[in-house]
Amino acid sequence: MKRHLISEIVDCVGQQVELRGWVLRRRDHGKIIFCDLRDRSGVVQVVVVPDFSDAYESAQEVRSEYAVSIVGRVKARPGGASNEGLSTGSVEVEADSLRVLSRTAGDLPIDISKEDLDVQLPTLLDHRYLSLRHKKVNSIFAVYSELIASYADAMREAGFREIKTPKLLSNATEGGANFFKVKYFDRWAYLAQSPQFYKQAGVGAFERVFEIGPVFRAEPHFTSRHVNEYVSLDAEMGFIDSYEDLMDQLEDVLGFVVSRVSERCSGALLDHGSEISVPERFVRMKLTEALEILRKEFGKKLDDVDIDPEGERLICEYVKREYGSDFVFLTHYPAKIRPMYAMPSDDPQYTNSFDLLYRGVEIATGGQRIHEYAALVENIKRHGLNPEDYADYLEMFKYAMPPHGGWGMGSERVCQKFLGLASIKEAIMFPRDVKRLTP
Amino acid sequence: MKRHLISEIVDCVGQQVELRGWVLRRRDHGKIIFCDLRDRSGVVQVVVVPDFSDAYESAQEVRSEYAVSIVGRVKARPGGASNEGLSTGSVEVEADSLRVLSRTAGDLPIDISKEDLDVQLPTLLDHRYLSLRHKKVNSIFAVYSELIASYADAMREAGFREIKTPKLLSNATEGGANFFKVKYFDRWAYLAQSPQFYKQAGVGAFERVFEIGPVFRAEPHFTSRHVNEYVSLDAEMGFIDSYEDLMDQLEDVLGFVVSRVSERCSGALLDHGSEISVPERFVRMKLTEALEILRKEFGKKLDDVDIDPEGERLICEYVKREYGSDFVFLTHYPAKIRPMYAMPSDDPQYTNSFDLLYRGVEIATGGQRIHEYAALVENIKRHGLNPEDYADYLEMFKYAMPPHGGWGMGSERVCQKFLGLASIKEAIMFPRDVKRLTP
Repeated sequence: MKRHLISEIVDCVGQQVELRGWVLRRRDHGKIIFCDLRDRSGVVQVVVVPDFSDAYESAQEVRSEYAVSIVGRVKARPGGASNEGLSTGSVEVEADSLRVLSRTAGDLPIDISKEDLDVQLPTLLDHRYLSLRHKKVNSIFAVYSELIASYADAMREAGFREIKTPKLLSNATEGGANFFKVKYFDRWAYLAQSPQFYKQAGVGAFERVFEIGPVFRAEPHFTSRHVNEYVSLDAEMGFIDSYEDLMDQLEDVLGFVVSRVSERCSGALLDHGSEISVPERFVRMKLTEALEILRKEFGKKLDDVDIDPEGERLICEYVKREYGSDFVFLTHYPAKIRPMYAMPSDDPQYTNSFDLLYRGVEIATGGQRIHEYAALVENIKRHGLNPEDYADYLEMFKYAMPPHGGWGMGSERVCQKFLGLASIKEAIMFPRDVKRLTP
Repeated sequence: MKRHLISEIVDCVGQQVELRGWVLRRRDHGKIIFCDLRDRSGVVQVVVVPDFSDAYESAQEVRSEYAVSIVGRVKARPGGASNEGLSTGSVEVEADSLRVLSRTAGDLPIDISKEDLDVQLPTLLDHRYLSLRHKKVNSIFAVYSELIASYADAMREAGFREIKTPKLLSNATEGGANFFKVKYFDRWAYLAQSPQFYKQAGVGAFERVFEIGPVFRAEPHFTSRHVNEYVSLDAEMGFIDSYEDLMDQLEDVLGFVVSRVSERCSGALLDHGSEISVPERFVRMKLTEALEILRKEFGKKLDDVDIDPEGERLICEYVKREYGSDFVFLTHYPAKIRPMYAMPSDDPQYTNSFDLLYRGVEIATGGQRIHEYAALVENIKRHGLNPEDYADYLEMFKYAMPPHGGWGMGSERVCQKFLGLASIKEAIMFPRDVKRLTP
């Protein structure tokens, strides 16, 4: 007998089926035992009566979260007894046999059969093997999986080639500090903070590239927005006319992602009481305008250079109120707070760069890159850095790099904001922070 | 004017188009200058005549690999002048204007306009920014991109959820040696050798999971089959009946991958003179049978425990000759050469495990895992290891793990073998080995 998924059996009334999964809860009514069985497709009520003595005996031994195989007949539940809260609520399975595949050892530290887990973040993560089984937690990773798949599909559709670039680097010179050091045979290597240099090399070869891969940041942050290892959704695009092309492309990609996640994960979004939508074009404003709004509208004093997390939250609030949009591009970041490869604007104090804010936080950062060898050497010096330290990187610019740019987007932050999660760590199966390297 | 891709213009005879790309070669015939222009979609001949004086002037300055934008009219080439070797060979573009977007600096170290690059591997990799532009090298990464995309599509189609697991681990206890050590704030962490433990956790939560991600091996190998960082195609599958289910599933996945790569990368395969196909079912033989064949058919003396690289090559030769298949599963590896989590066979000297060989090398390794807590503790001890070192891992087995197993497959090895490349390093954009951490 072929195993059926629970989601398939509403169409199998009268048939004998085999189901496999975990016992979500078990209620012993003496003459009759009810088990709610959960598999990857859903939950269904299983009824065990003493007439089927083997099944009944096994069912008495069963506890929450045991893994079992059940053979039984699918029955329609009488109108009054049907469960509206369950997609399989119109049927139940009367077990002929129940086989325990695997047992739990000891008591369960958290009760995952409740509608809300209702535990603090450290508990949620300490008992990750179990908390991942909870319906709402599971939903997060259904959304996450669809998010990265739809990102890849959107990029391919737009002619971007998927690449994989090395995470082990010889130098910690990518344009930031806070690298993790790795003992690499008889020397030191560094973990990539981003695929920046390699995706630019990808442009030189293939014009348009994207990568989905881990990045590592040795930043001692303790916030709800930061982790030390995350998965970045990167892209880099050659032969652009201006850096506006990059924002246009990112809008298209997010439009596709949002519509796919809405369509394929409607249940998961519902679990979290979340709705997502995307305007055709996102609001774009200069960083200086945003700072002006913060001063005028919110009386916020800023140093005129950069925006802070509270400022990002307030600007999103403002844009939502004024334009009805969850998304806003802030553009023209000052050269002194952007890396040495950022393309200067017409006013060279600024750069052709942007951050994309969504529901109060920055989810992507990007911009045009300098593509001419001599200009890049100059800009490296202007940043007080030594071009010799960038010899490997500079090499690619000897072979006519086209005008180009791209972005990096934090996949887990997007997922967090799609679902309104309090912490980014809820959107990562096994998050890594300064204190946490386990499980 | 919207940019056209070169592949689109055969249908644009008589139209004015803008093309962007790199000059593959330039031939100056005095009265007329020919440029072969390359973009991500193909190559086309551009003709520049003195009538269009601006274009003609720019074309005189142009050198190989300059990035340019060309506006011109698409013309049909007269029958005799058409180039059969080029998919755009029936047309050419007469340039009205030619704009240099970016220049090369100095001489090019390798000539990428030749049909064969004809350089040694170190040269190929030292000049990676340039060698990636060569048609045959580019083809490798077209295949690679399709390989990982089709793997993901096949897994999703079979109900596997895509997950991303941490690459930073607190312990080096995954069941192998040769971990890279990372300075992690005030302590040490280790780079993941495989997502093994975490994908098993994924089974506990989601039943079926897959991951495409980097793995790191601190092995001091110097072979054509090894690198120290590669991208593993992992999968793990719960509620299996037996470990044969895993091989069935892997066959289906590879069947899908091979057909998609054949279909969508036919040109790239042709560039490498390669054809790929897949039998419906792969030959499966016990490792002991394989060792027996090696003795009988090839007079090879072996220690009766494991097969070596030469043995793998010879067995593939034998299976190709006897069964016409490029694929063969070797099964039932001895417990002493498999990790502590490998499920013992009926004869507990052996395990329910397999390696998949393809065209002479192992491309995947997998098997069933022990899913019961007590049995796993016992097996850890039997391997001379301390269960306390595996406390985090063992935790998941307290919550009823279902019977399960999975595989890890080396993406670059598959790509290498699809195309018949001499070294795996040719199938990696920026490979990492004991000596090489650059570019």
